[in-house]
Amino acid sequence: MSSERHGTVYVINPNSSTAVTQGIDAAVAPLRSTDGPAIACLTLAEGPAGIQSQRDVDGIVGPLLARAAPLEDEAGAFVIACFSDPGLHALREQSSRPVLGIAECGVLTALTLGQRFGVIAILPTSIPRHLRYFGAMGVSARLAGDRAIGLGVTELADEERTLARMSEVGRVLRDTDGADVIVMGCAGMARFRDPLEAALGVPVVEPTQAAVAMALGRVCLGWSGKTGRGAAA
Amino acid sequence: MSSERHGTVYVINPNSSTAVTQGIDAAVAPLRSTDGPAIACLTLAEGPAGIQSQRDVDGIVGPLLARAAPLEDEAGAFVIACFSDPGLHALREQSSRPVLGIAECGVLTALTLGQRFGVIAILPTSIPRHLRYFGAMGVSARLAGDRAIGLGVTELADEERTLARMSEVGRVLRDTDGADVIVMGCAGMARFRDPLEAALGVPVVEPTQAAVAMALGRVCLGWSGKTGRGAAA
Amino acid sequence: MSSERHGTVYVINPNSSTAVTQGIDAAVAPLRSTDGPAIACLTLAEGPAGIQSQRDVDGIVGPLLARAAPLEDEAGAFVIACFSDPGLHALREQSSRPVLGIAECGVLTALTLGQRFGVIAILPTSIPRHLRYFGAMGVSARLAGDRAIGLGVTELADEERTLARMSEVGRVLRDTDGADVIVMGCAGMARFRDPLEAALGVPVVEPTQAAVAMALGRVCLGWSGKTGRGAAA
Amino acid sequence: MSSERHGTVYVINPNSSTAVTQGIDAAVAPLRSTDGPAIACLTLAEGPAGIQSQRDVDGIVGPLLARAAPLEDEAGAFVIACFSDPGLHALREQSSRPVLGIAECGVLTALTLGQRFGVIAILPTSIPRHLRYFGAMGVSARLAGDRAIGLGVTELADEERTLARMSEVGRVLRDTDGADVIVMGCAGMARFRDPLEAALGVPVVEPTQAAVAMALGRVCLGWSGKTGRGAAA
Amino acid sequence: MSSERHGTVYVINPNSSTAVTQGIDAAVAPLRSTDGPAIACLTLAEGPAGIQSQRDVDGIVGPLLARAAPLEDEAGAFVIACFSDPGLHALREQSSRPVLGIAECGVLTALTLGQRFGVIAILPTSIPRHLRYFGAMGVSARLAGDRAIGLGVTELADEERTLARMSEVGRVLRDTDGADVIVMGCAGMARFRDPLEAALGVPVVEPTQAAVAMALGRVCLGWSGKTGRGAAA
Amino acid sequence: MSSERHGTVYVINPNSSTAVTQGIDAAVAPLRSTDGPAIACLTLAEGPAGIQSQRDVDGIVGPLLARAAPLEDEAGAFVIACFSDPGLHALREQSSRPVLGIAECGVLTALTLGQRFGVIAILPTSIPRHLRYFGAMGVSARLAGDRAIGLGVTELADEERTLARMSEVGRVLRDTDGADVIVMGCAGMARFRDPLEAALGVPVVEPTQAAVAMALGRVCLGWSGKTGRGAAA
Repeated sequence: MSSERHGTVYVINPNSSTAVTQGIDAAVAPLRSTDGPAIACLTLAEGPAGIQSQRDVDGIVGPLLARAAPLEDEAGAFVIACFSDPGLHALREQSSRPVLGIAECGVLTALTLGQRFGVIAILPTSIPRHLRYFGAMGVSARLAGDRAIGLGVTELADEERTLARMSEVGRVLRDTDGADVIVMGCAGMARFRDPLEAALGVPVVEPTQAAVAMALGRVCLGWSGKTGRGAAA
Repeated sequence: MSSERHGTVYVINPNSSTAVTQGIDAAVAPLRSTDGPAIACLTLAEGPAGIQSQRDVDGIVGPLLARAAPLEDEAGAFVIACFSDPGLHALREQSSRPVLGIAECGVLTALTLGQRFGVIAILPTSIPRHLRYFGAMGVSARLAGDRAIGLGVTELADEERTLARMSEVGRVLRDTDGADVIVMGCAGMARFRDPLEAALGVPVVEPTQAAVAMALGRVCLGWSGKTGRGAAA
Repeated sequence: MSSERHGTVYVINPNSSTAVTQGIDAAVAPLRSTDGPAIACLTLAEGPAGIQSQRDVDGIVGPLLARAAPLEDEAGAFVIACFSDPGLHALREQSSRPVLGIAECGVLTALTLGQRFGVIAILPTSIPRHLRYFGAMGVSARLAGDRAIGLGVTELADEERTLARMSEVGRVLRDTDGADVIVMGCAGMARFRDPLEAALGVPVVEPTQAAVAMALGRVCLGWSGKTGRGAAA
Repeated sequence: MSSERHGTVYVINPNSSTAVTQGIDAAVAPLRSTDGPAIACLTLAEGPAGIQSQRDVDGIVGPLLARAAPLEDEAGAFVIACFSDPGLHALREQSSRPVLGIAECGVLTALTLGQRFGVIAILPTSIPRHLRYFGAMGVSARLAGDRAIGLGVTELADEERTLARMSEVGRVLRDTDGADVIVMGCAGMARFRDPLEAALGVPVVEPTQAAVAMALGRVCLGWSGKTGRGAAA
Repeated sequence: MSSERHGTVYVINPNSSTAVTQGIDAAVAPLRSTDGPAIACLTLAEGPAGIQSQRDVDGIVGPLLARAAPLEDEAGAFVIACFSDPGLHALREQSSRPVLGIAECGVLTALTLGQRFGVIAILPTSIPRHLRYFGAMGVSARLAGDRAIGLGVTELADEERTLARMSEVGRVLRDTDGADVIVMGCAGMARFRDPLEAALGVPVVEPTQAAVAMALGRVCLGWSGKTGRGAAA
Repeated sequence: MSSERHGTVYVINPNSSTAVTQGIDAAVAPLRSTDGPAIACLTLAEGPAGIQSQRDVDGIVGPLLARAAPLEDEAGAFVIACFSDPGLHALREQSSRPVLGIAECGVLTALTLGQRFGVIAILPTSIPRHLRYFGAMGVSARLAGDRAIGLGVTELADEERTLARMSEVGRVLRDTDGADVIVMGCAGMARFRDPLEAALGVPVVEPTQAAVAMALGRVCLGWSGKTGRGAAA
């Protein structure tokens, strides 16, 4: 176990779905190593079944901060595993550890894989929220487009259909919007990454994997992301 | 009373300071008219004494939504009176009424008064949050600078000193950063607007007044800001 | 009458069509109140029948300034009711009152109603002029698209056809360009706002109403928009 | 004479100062050649002594269009020799010849000489106008700064003092704002270009020379800048 | 001969195709004059048959610098005649003469002919490279779109087909992307400019002509583009 | 050894200084793990002693590609360890492995640590090159400033002085430019990261460490960054 040398990377799934957490856990398995930091994936029991609205995003911040607080000593880093990066800056205030969001890291990673990134959202109502976020990140000039598959929770259970819709939307992002790299705008769907990339012929970024990869480096390097002045100062 | 013709503009101060709410109430008094919409200023009892951190911003959203919900039928519009516009998009989802934030409206109003706006923040830690927000609004190209007076709660009670600091920071925004209009980056300080404008010689925007003014127009016109598809869709 | 308490908001239609002025007058009627500022809508007799070219835009500035000058003492604010905002900055120099343009205020208002605004222009030749203006305003990052209905003066008289074309163009802005709020890129067509919003299912901004609403607030607050240094300094 | 082969490049000085026109004429002399297009510099008698305000800029468009109209047949191109590029787009509508503005061409030329351009304005009140223009041009990201020498007409007559102020402002643009190329924000001061460049050690663009140089190429190539659809369509 | 009065404008075609160089030479012929600078078009023998990849672009810089070095004394200016502007900044370091790239000048010239420029690329793989370059130039906000004709070297030999594809792509740039000016994204195809402009009805910029035109002005004016501090400092 | 499970991350120092390569090797040591990818740091013998000019940057691409080619089969990823990211896109074309640049990854990592990043360059002549690159990356809106320590090769050998200058420049970036995270704009100076962070009180990014950390994740995940269409297509 690596916990003596490094703190643990805690990946917090802020919705209450343990299936999503299990998907995340499987997705980050290739990033585990014998003497690297441990990676622990947690479910936020207080979270909604799915984070769909801005209300969901804002509402989860308090429970997420509470969940993270007792982990502080053990933690090497935190990853917030929801594509709206809820509580990202609040947790950065609270913790002295590196805190990464999957939307942020998914997009930043995409910037190394293509010149214009496209985002596959689940719901159309998430798109303005994404656009606000990319504007806050200052990376809108690299955005090719953000389009939704528009499937509800029940429909998402049909994996074949979900992949088909993702491929369809990805092709529009690629061919109409000019995207040469695609970011999956959700957590817990890493199992679709390989077939989606095969279907589209352009790189596909699974954002939780992207974020955990970045978190591991931060832990190994011992960069706290926190100084006397504070990252947010 | 105007309530028969129009719904009320509810101005919600999301911190628990009734002194701030009273300051807001006095500030918007010139906007009241016999047969225009009523303007009611409320204090969010659950709020912190002051909203200073991202945690404060995110944490207030739930109580704010709960406070607004029972007002829906009476409401003509809602104004969120904190310069971080907490819960702006969540309340837009919840309510079928126009919802405006004071940071948003303060900045938009400034864009009609000068070519480069400067912001006087209270605390330096708020600046990155402001910058993210201006980026999300897509107006960063018009920002001259954002600088903090850096006074704590106790110090703010000294009005002379506060005004002196605001004037000092305003002069730096004007002379070093090239701002030709200033936005006060806080609620509840409308009493300083006139002396600050006199001291600086450039227009000064008090954001709560700016937001309530815009809300009144929206109510009179009957624009809901909500359609079948939804403002956030 | 409110003239004792407040100056009058003068809405100047810079084309010579009294029908357009009457349309504007009807559109701003809901914004009138017993003790609020009076709103007077004027026609610029020297203006062309319609403002269509850059030549028209530039050529109207002199007459517009001359028309406004004698109103200065009575004025609380000026609104220039043409979507090219002709003479906006020149009138700001001349007058010590707030001066607002309908394109400016229409767009700024749209920024509070959606994340990406679409503009319905009348003529395709106006689009580059609009794009230059949005660039000067620094809000191009929020523009979804600007498309023209392409109807001439005679054709515009056919209201059914005009509304049909506006709806058609609005749907392209919404579905192809991703607009979630629409700005009507012309004055004098307020009667189409409600049916257009109903047809499109996204908020529609009528820019003259948006500008007069903002002007009223400015008058009530007594913000001159003019200081010792000058708004344009 | 070259008039048989090419049309003449008409450089219109929109202020009424023949001294300025003479300065322009001398400045473009190195661009004349035996069989290249003729270059004729004209004074707009109706213009103000100096173009200082937005009112001046807008007010000159009508006379400028009237001055240019009878030259159309002889013209190979038009250059508008005022740093606010008054009437640029209106003249483009009117004429079938290439029309260039000195601000536009001065800035575009600067983009080939450095990464961040600084502008030396005459009056501080011109700066917001410049910033709007650079925004409309979409080149604000390359702007290091725009600063004024702040000398009035009488003071400008003192050449030594004027050059000293330009050098002083240029040094601030270079050292504080990071400019690595300087654009002179006015016409008729070409005589200061060489000493200013020597004083600053970075390239200095005289905008009238830059514009006439670009106009000559356009004439020789026979690019009209006007098509069936029109440059402004 | 003009060499006594002015240095020669050396146009270096960095690929090894003498046919391309001949096409460039014919294209710039209208820019020659009796007493203006001479224009000499050179082929880089070490260059690849065509510059298609980033490897080609980077690989050509060394030979290009070596080719230019012995021309320094005779040179009035250098133009690099490949739409990727290979070695532009390296040659600016090496030479004390003005150095211009055809992509740079083609785009800057387009900014004077329309509000949104479209680029016709040869290969789709060049598009991300173009986008990076427009980003570096800070002009992305003016880009309507960049689309490729997708023809290989053999296919390009079929002139009729090439023009047909260029027209087809140009129409998509104009009608779908909203371009009102087109830049040909390649050197050596000046013969297509006139028919393409006729087919599209919007101005078409041939970038080598645009760059040589700008270079001539620079030489006549004697602006070195090099100072004590250096253009790149 | 991890080579059976993963390919090696090859970090190529494109200058010929083995001391720099040793510094890099020491800097990335904390990122090594028993069963993670091996990390091998190589010196490019053909490189200059230091990469200072654009000529150096462009000139190194050919040798770098040649050095990388025979490593392809063993490679899991490549990192180019020079802050100008020479050959980044050319190597992406050549290799089917992930290729990362230290400037790119340093900046992207900084975007997760602060809102405005400052860059400490070695030479002032590098700044325009950096600015072009940040423009190409589309992240200029997040840049606070880029300033040089201005020390030559000999002076850099004086470590105390170098750190003092870096601290001094970092303070200007922090206090004048508003940077809340600093990127070291060079490779091989990782030993200064900790003292610099301590001196400045804001996070400091050492770009080689940032890039290798990202490369490791990419290798573990098996994302090639290369598809049928190609990352650059």
